[in-house]
Amino acid sequence: MSAETGRTGRRAGESGTRQAILEAARRRFAEHGYDGATIRGIAADAGVDPALVHHFYGTKERLFVAALRFPIVPSEVIGRVVGTDRERLGETIVRTVLGVWEAKETRAQSLALLRSAVTNEQAATMLRGFVSSAILGTIATVAEPEDAEYRASLVASQIVGLGMARYIVGLEPLVRAGVDDLVAAVAPTLQRYLTGEVRAPG
Amino acid sequence: MSAETGRTGRRAGESGTRQAILEAARRRFAEHGYDGATIRGIAADAGVDPALVHHFYGTKERLFVAALRFPIVPSEVIGRVVGTDRERLGETIVRTVLGVWEAKETRAQSLALLRSAVTNEQAATMLRGFVSSAILGTIATVAEPEDAEYRASLVASQIVGLGMARYIVGLEPLVRAGVDDLVAAVAPTLQRYLTGEVRAPG
Repeated sequence: MSAETGRTGRRAGESGTRQAILEAARRRFAEHGYDGATIRGIAADAGVDPALVHHFYGTKERLFVAALRFPIVPSEVIGRVVGTDRERLGETIVRTVLGVWEAKETRAQSLALLRSAVTNEQAATMLRGFVSSAILGTIATVAEPEDAEYRASLVASQIVGLGMARYIVGLEPLVRAGVDDLVAAVAPTLQRYLTGEVRAPG
Repeated sequence: MSAETGRTGRRAGESGTRQAILEAARRRFAEHGYDGATIRGIAADAGVDPALVHHFYGTKERLFVAALRFPIVPSEVIGRVVGTDRERLGETIVRTVLGVWEAKETRAQSLALLRSAVTNEQAATMLRGFVSSAILGTIATVAEPEDAEYRASLVASQIVGLGMARYIVGLEPLVRAGVDDLVAAVAPTLQRYLTGEVRAPG
């Protein structure tokens, strides 16, 4: 009992519980995808009350972000992005993403996520569901309503490719370019994908 | 000696020699990069005459392509691409790349290459050198001369991202879209990167 009442003991207990919740979350997200996994199910697997999961992590998104060691909470960043001037969406998005990648603290985590999505089918499935629900859904609210998710996915393709080419493959001309140069080059692409002329698929 | 004169023996001998050359090539390309590796050095490592390497593989590019199990010979495909109408370069490039990815025979190899570049630093180094020398160099010959390699690298970033998003992460709206839809959406991006207004970096 001293482990639950002593100062160090309490800490170890809480950290152990958090660990159990994160592990249960990773298993559930992997098995059921982001949409299919529930906080109730994760709590059951971890042997704790769902209220405790809510207390520790708040929302399912925040639990996912913690379980997969995301460098940021996407909805917070995206919330700031979509609140800006519609005519400058492309610029705001690429500048925000490059900001996350350029910062030492968040770059390694971002690249680790990208790597796992490429090499691990389970990680890809989890990320796919999350990106569709939490990221593309929000970006789609500011795109032209027709085919908003298609437009948001095109944005994602250019963003992912820029990250790959500059930070992972390391193509020299993109490594040497400054953030402002890349923003100037890529922003019009994203802006067109979101609000410009894009033929509806099908 | 029968192994070198008998029918089956000769085949096994040639196949063994080819195998030794490809293994030496992979080691040399990994150690010295695409530009630094020489056919002479690879032949020495494999214990054969350089003329035999030329006889089997022709150029250094073809040897690299065979050693890394490329699905295509890039310079041949790119040669066709850059010979087309300058105003339709963007369309031709994205249609050609999607053609390689859509074909069952070449898709698996392409994706395996992409995966290894993302997860293996040595593979990334080899590919980086090859892409810069053999691919970007050729594409750059048809871009605006100012910052031609920067322009070609921007093209590569969108192409790689499209491949990742459609074939590896599997974003639904891009998976569902037809090739013609994707060509219509992405071609103007590539065209602008190659021949449109792009601010010079620096």
